[in-house]
Amino acid sequence: MSPTAGPRELVDQALRAALDRLDPHTRHCCGYHLGLWDADGRSLPPARHGGKALRPTLALLSAQAAGVPVEQGVPAAVACELVHNFSLLHDDVIDGDTERRHRPTVWARFGVAEAILAGDAMLTLALEVLGDVGSATAPAAVSRLSATVRRLIAGQSADVAFEKRDDVTLPECLAMAADKTAALFSCSASLGAVLAGAPEHVVEGLATYGDHLGMAFQLTDDLLGIWGDQAVTGKPVLSDLRARKKTVPVVVALSSNDPPGRQLRELYAEPIPLTGPDLERAAHLVESAGGRTWTQAEVDRQISAAVEVLDGLDLPPVVHAELTALAHRLRVRDH
Amino acid sequence: MSPTAGPRELVDQALRAALDRLDPHTRHCCGYHLGLWDADGRSLPPARHGGKALRPTLALLSAQAAGVPVEQGVPAAVACELVHNFSLLHDDVIDGDTERRHRPTVWARFGVAEAILAGDAMLTLALEVLGDVGSATAPAAVSRLSATVRRLIAGQSADVAFEKRDDVTLPECLAMAADKTAALFSCSASLGAVLAGAPEHVVEGLATYGDHLGMAFQLTDDLLGIWGDQAVTGKPVLSDLRARKKTVPVVVALSSNDPPGRQLRELYAEPIPLTGPDLERAAHLVESAGGRTWTQAEVDRQISAAVEVLDGLDLPPVVHAELTALAHRLRVRDH
Repeated sequence: MSPTAGPRELVDQALRAALDRLDPHTRHCCGYHLGLWDADGRSLPPARHGGKALRPTLALLSAQAAGVPVEQGVPAAVACELVHNFSLLHDDVIDGDTERRHRPTVWARFGVAEAILAGDAMLTLALEVLGDVGSATAPAAVSRLSATVRRLIAGQSADVAFEKRDDVTLPECLAMAADKTAALFSCSASLGAVLAGAPEHVVEGLATYGDHLGMAFQLTDDLLGIWGDQAVTGKPVLSDLRARKKTVPVVVALSSNDPPGRQLRELYAEPIPLTGPDLERAAHLVESAGGRTWTQAEVDRQISAAVEVLDGLDLPPVVHAELTALAHRLRVRDH
Repeated sequence: MSPTAGPRELVDQALRAALDRLDPHTRHCCGYHLGLWDADGRSLPPARHGGKALRPTLALLSAQAAGVPVEQGVPAAVACELVHNFSLLHDDVIDGDTERRHRPTVWARFGVAEAILAGDAMLTLALEVLGDVGSATAPAAVSRLSATVRRLIAGQSADVAFEKRDDVTLPECLAMAADKTAALFSCSASLGAVLAGAPEHVVEGLATYGDHLGMAFQLTDDLLGIWGDQAVTGKPVLSDLRARKKTVPVVVALSSNDPPGRQLRELYAEPIPLTGPDLERAAHLVESAGGRTWTQAEVDRQISAAVEVLDGLDLPPVVHAELTALAHRLRVRDH
């Protein structure tokens, strides 16, 4: 059974109920960020709500993977979606990003204080929602989500540090991507099962599946950050290169000793901001140095690994099929 | 029994163990903030660690109030200290404060990204430490702490909003102080009892005691923010007035229709930054308009109310005596 409108509506309702616990101004900023309403509080159509909702979908499927009704995965879905959005809110402040999902970011629209506090609020609600489940499995879920947030923080901290360094290695870069993105996919894919009291090997298998899925997702993000269509991604074109981000394709290229790799190192080392023609040239050099090909191949490898993990788990057939399909859909992701 | 070196050392150890779960850079920033080490990682003497540690002391006494050994209050003490410091880290970014406890703040020393992430990390660890207790009472503790963090956020959000308003009423201002400060005192004074599984009326009584204590603490802070000795408080002199903060003594004075109140309103309404002589004059006007006297009387009233609550709780006599003494000590606080 795929998560139909029913469970997705339950997640939406539970998310709104969580926001209702906040003071009005913080709640307003959180709902604006989630695309529930515009800056003046007017409701937005559901299509504008936070995009693909991959993490809640995974959390719901993870409960079903453990053989319990999908409804039992709702707190996990809400918690993961809240943590994801907490990290976006703070990352936008840290990175100075003014736009997300074709709208001004919360700090750009309301202020830095508001964005920091809205992020704090969503992180708090995430752990609160799990604590409130009331089952004997709730503390393990709180522990898993907390450990995940620590990894998100480690990943973002490394990301910030990498911008000031010119000697980032590929293993460091992959570890950063694992912390920054794969950790929450891993948690989403296993948290519903944790709440459902699934056996350890199922929980860990789903977590590993999520890890691979998250790596594939982040590497695709890195590719879209350079070669994506701005009209589709909603992000300013080549912004990752402009910020001299050490994303995976870039680091692969920087690590190459062929001429394009050397030229890219020289370009990245220049103390002036990268603009129009330089950015195009940087993108071209990343590709010539093999950064694009290696990363695309790694996406495929991660998706295959994710699917392979599932095959060893003896899941209910429909859930197995859904999780497999979800992994394959990442191959053709364009936003 | 007073919390001796023993339990305080246990809190210190548990706090350090919690930080050890973080990535090295975030851990470094958190420990710097707590005064465990300097910016280069050299250990600092215990006297430099976070001041009075009122919140952990309250949490430990709260466990003893429920009749369990003081050790059982340690996770509550650590969690409350972590939440307190999470809020300081983020408030320093939001308020642009460059100094705290006679040292540069984390954002001023390491960067805004680092301070946001260090705060996020401490908030996460706080809830994680409670979730990890493993007792049947842990989820209730997570819920109580989460609800408290939501109030801290509401209070800080109101504080930020008040700076842009010139019509803040005294009830609004007191509600802000209750959220921003009293909420965490209330939580600290009751969280050990929650973990200990104390009866509802004991938990709520201790929470109410903590609320009164926290109000007395915040109002004293407001007084010290205007009339405190910088060498003792470690805060730049008159900084609250410089930032046109709507603290309780200021709002009492602004609400007065006597000449000093009117003059203060005119001074606060001027669009230019307040400097040296204007700040001295503002402080004088707050006093002449009755802001200082009213606030001092309110501190006394809150301390008396705190002590009165304790009298109705039938606590172990030594714990009752400690909590009473702690309340009375706030009367003569100078930092």
